[in-house]
Amino acid sequence: MSSFYAAETPERVQKAQGLHLITSLTPNGRKVHILLEELKEAYGLEWTTSLIDLDKNEQKKDWFLRLNPNGRIPILIDNNTSPPHVVMESSAELLYLVNLADKNDIFWFSDPIEQSEAFQWLIFWHASGQPNQGQYNFFRNKADQSSLAIDRFKSEVLRVYDVLEIRLSGRYGGGTREYLAGRGKGKYSITDVNAWAWIRNIRRIGFSEDELAQFPYLQQWVDHIAARPAVERGLGEWYDEDMHPELLLETSEL
Amino acid sequence: MSSFYAAETPERVQKAQGLHLITSLTPNGRKVHILLEELKEAYGLEWTTSLIDLDKNEQKKDWFLRLNPNGRIPILIDNNTSPPHVVMESSAELLYLVNLADKNDIFWFSDPIEQSEAFQWLIFWHASGQPNQGQYNFFRNKADQSSLAIDRFKSEVLRVYDVLEIRLSGRYGGGTREYLAGRGKGKYSITDVNAWAWIRNIRRIGFSEDELAQFPYLQQWVDHIAARPAVERGLGEWYDEDMHPELLLETSEL
Repeated sequence: MSSFYAAETPERVQKAQGLHLITSLTPNGRKVHILLEELKEAYGLEWTTSLIDLDKNEQKKDWFLRLNPNGRIPILIDNNTSPPHVVMESSAELLYLVNLADKNDIFWFSDPIEQSEAFQWLIFWHASGQPNQGQYNFFRNKADQSSLAIDRFKSEVLRVYDVLEIRLSGRYGGGTREYLAGRGKGKYSITDVNAWAWIRNIRRIGFSEDELAQFPYLQQWVDHIAARPAVERGLGEWYDEDMHPELLLETSEL
Repeated sequence: MSSFYAAETPERVQKAQGLHLITSLTPNGRKVHILLEELKEAYGLEWTTSLIDLDKNEQKKDWFLRLNPNGRIPILIDNNTSPPHVVMESSAELLYLVNLADKNDIFWFSDPIEQSEAFQWLIFWHASGQPNQGQYNFFRNKADQSSLAIDRFKSEVLRVYDVLEIRLSGRYGGGTREYLAGRGKGKYSITDVNAWAWIRNIRRIGFSEDELAQFPYLQQWVDHIAARPAVERGLGEWYDEDMHPELLLETSEL
């Protein structure tokens, strides 16, 4: 595919077979690592991984923009289709993976009402949660910045966490829940994975004890999911460029 | 449903039958108006509409938070299910509507590869486009704000528009496209509607002629979609509280 791979596309990518993940240890990367590890445990799914050095801005080079014009990781390439199918946007990758490999709907829903719920909370987090949390991280690390932006994004993150707390605590009815989507107390699904990868550090992103005390159900949800073996593996050394420099991509010399 | 409607939930909502939309004339509202108008034209779909006065913060009141704990419009209530099914998040509402009513996949895709493409660009816009455009609007209207935030969000909106321009122009291969998702030149779908409702004013959100000149394909796409009759109707007077005060919701007196 002349329009797909460029001459300088790393050989490791050009020669990959089957499912190939290009990632880094970021919250969006971790979402996809976790689901892949879950699918491996449940179904024996296989894939190969390449790592990107974000400090070198490898993801802004032409060869990468051909695969994802947004210049962001993670991306997933399915070489089993012809031409290979590239998926950008971490939530869309989770959806692609459950459609491809989760035949028994262990991590997704076949019922249309439950599926609609799962979409709502997936999109809520991807659109209202992570952009605000990302901006909050950016502005609180800029000491010279006026406090308007910091205050705005901090209060928005707290508001979004409270929306999740409403959902899990049943504050407005519906009873308490263990997971974000699904009937009754809900079922662990990609909707949880999607948000969890960002919220897992809730106790370490600059909130006071008093602020944290407003989110007992959310903290319980964080800890509950953290204990899953596939989740632990998804956070771990296999996606760490210091532990696995052989997985790092480098632009091919022309 | 005691957990669903409160005593002060407006009667117009409690007594609604079939599909009921609660909305206002915002970009997210318009997305859903447009798709409903398209589905009416294609299939004769029917629904009823209520309008929210955002200046009164009606969407932050308890009765509304029971329906959408995020306190945002639009929401869609399907009274044909038992219990009624409420959908929040405009993109999730578009997905619910095509699953419910678009039997011939006129505005969506049955092919899994095309469906994956459509999800990617739907989520890309909802997560990377509209939050940045919203922040850009917020900060540029704050005269006392340091320029870091304005510059950050303006350049991010321009970057996101360029990602769409790459897609439509075929800059990195794949040829030029008319629409964001689908094989060949693509097919008009909810993925376009989702982004169009925000980008339609591209020439009136503070960009210079030089900046606009970078997006010839995106501007063409804006104009092309604007000409659809259902799109015109979705922007129009039926969703305007000044034209139709009888559709405005007011909290029931207790």
